[in-house]
Amino acid sequence: MPVLHHYALSAASRIVRLHLAEYEREHELKTQLPWQRDEAFLALNPAGDLPVLVWPDGRHLAGARVICEWLEETTAEARLLAGDAGQRAEIRRLFDWFEIKFTAETSAPLLRERVVKRFSSAAPVSSQTIRAALANSQIHLGYINWLLETRSWLAGEAMSLADLAAAAHLSVLDYFGDISWDKYPEAKLWFMKMKSRPSYRSLMGDHLAGFPPARHYAEVDF
Amino acid sequence: MPVLHHYALSAASRIVRLHLAEYEREHELKTQLPWQRDEAFLALNPAGDLPVLVWPDGRHLAGARVICEWLEETTAEARLLAGDAGQRAEIRRLFDWFEIKFTAETSAPLLRERVVKRFSSAAPVSSQTIRAALANSQIHLGYINWLLETRSWLAGEAMSLADLAAAAHLSVLDYFGDISWDKYPEAKLWFMKMKSRPSYRSLMGDHLAGFPPARHYAEVDF
Repeated sequence: MPVLHHYALSAASRIVRLHLAEYEREHELKTQLPWQRDEAFLALNPAGDLPVLVWPDGRHLAGARVICEWLEETTAEARLLAGDAGQRAEIRRLFDWFEIKFTAETSAPLLRERVVKRFSSAAPVSSQTIRAALANSQIHLGYINWLLETRSWLAGEAMSLADLAAAAHLSVLDYFGDISWDKYPEAKLWFMKMKSRPSYRSLMGDHLAGFPPARHYAEVDF
Repeated sequence: MPVLHHYALSAASRIVRLHLAEYEREHELKTQLPWQRDEAFLALNPAGDLPVLVWPDGRHLAGARVICEWLEETTAEARLLAGDAGQRAEIRRLFDWFEIKFTAETSAPLLRERVVKRFSSAAPVSSQTIRAALANSQIHLGYINWLLETRSWLAGEAMSLADLAAAAHLSVLDYFGDISWDKYPEAKLWFMKMKSRPSYRSLMGDHLAGFPPARHYAEVDF
């Protein structure tokens, strides 16, 4: 059984957890603290990023995008990167939107200021950076809401990797209670659908010492 | 014929220029200045990034990763994302290495400090940021050199999208004469192979007013 090296508040790790669960691919989870230098982990992924999926025979895959494409290529009933080349491009565009743009503007600065700095740095936490990251998140939520006014799911009429990527990133903000969901009614309905999926359940069980989840984090009807 | 909205010193744009040229897919180039706010361009790609490929009927694809995957899926003789799922994962890992990690650590800060700030910002150029970005590039060059000690091409025994991504990013540094190639003999041999390909020719013709290329930029044997 492969082991997913992950961190509970790493959005990229959460994408792969959702994806593995959607396809009921057995795996174990192993926590890797993003702020700890770990030579064994760097040997698996010289880029140093999470997540990494490792098999007992040593084979391993690093990075959410790489693992998700691989899962689509090796799962018989794969259905999350479906459609013609144009549709698949739209799914990948939105996947990258969250994995690159949302990461840079919101997920990465929030994780760094709130979590990583607490454990690893003498640098003071910047409340200004946190405020800017949360302000950015509202622009993204507005964009999601706008997309969902004309689409059932983010990339079209079927659930896709784009929904997993968006839900994973937003789920970390939701853990901290950062989202005013009532301002984004279409996004809220969509997130309720995502939260009600069996694949989301393992995320709901996350509970980090020192960082209790917000009150409605584990509720499907929030 | 589609139009590729690009900028000559945008590494992501250069990946797609190489890819289109490898498959001899006809296209026109249209320069989009990364520091200019352009509502028509934002309508094509709300993320605001280059490159974007646009067809006369309005269809468009945004982002190097999206366009490259699309080209692989729609080109009959596609050969740059070949092999089994594990091999394709290795190609994508290295593609993302350059498009995400190298971009963050080297390409983006260099472009911002050297080019964007000259045209768009009152902020002073940070020579410290430039030095740090160039120091980072040496770690990446060392990694490339190490990979090429045991492989003919970056991701294995065949040229792939990983080579296009790496060559595109390094080509921008090469434009400025930033690379001490003699320190990386395997990487140098590989880059000579990349430069000698017909697909690289259009990059060699780039010549930006105010930023003349380094002396050996257009030479295959540098």
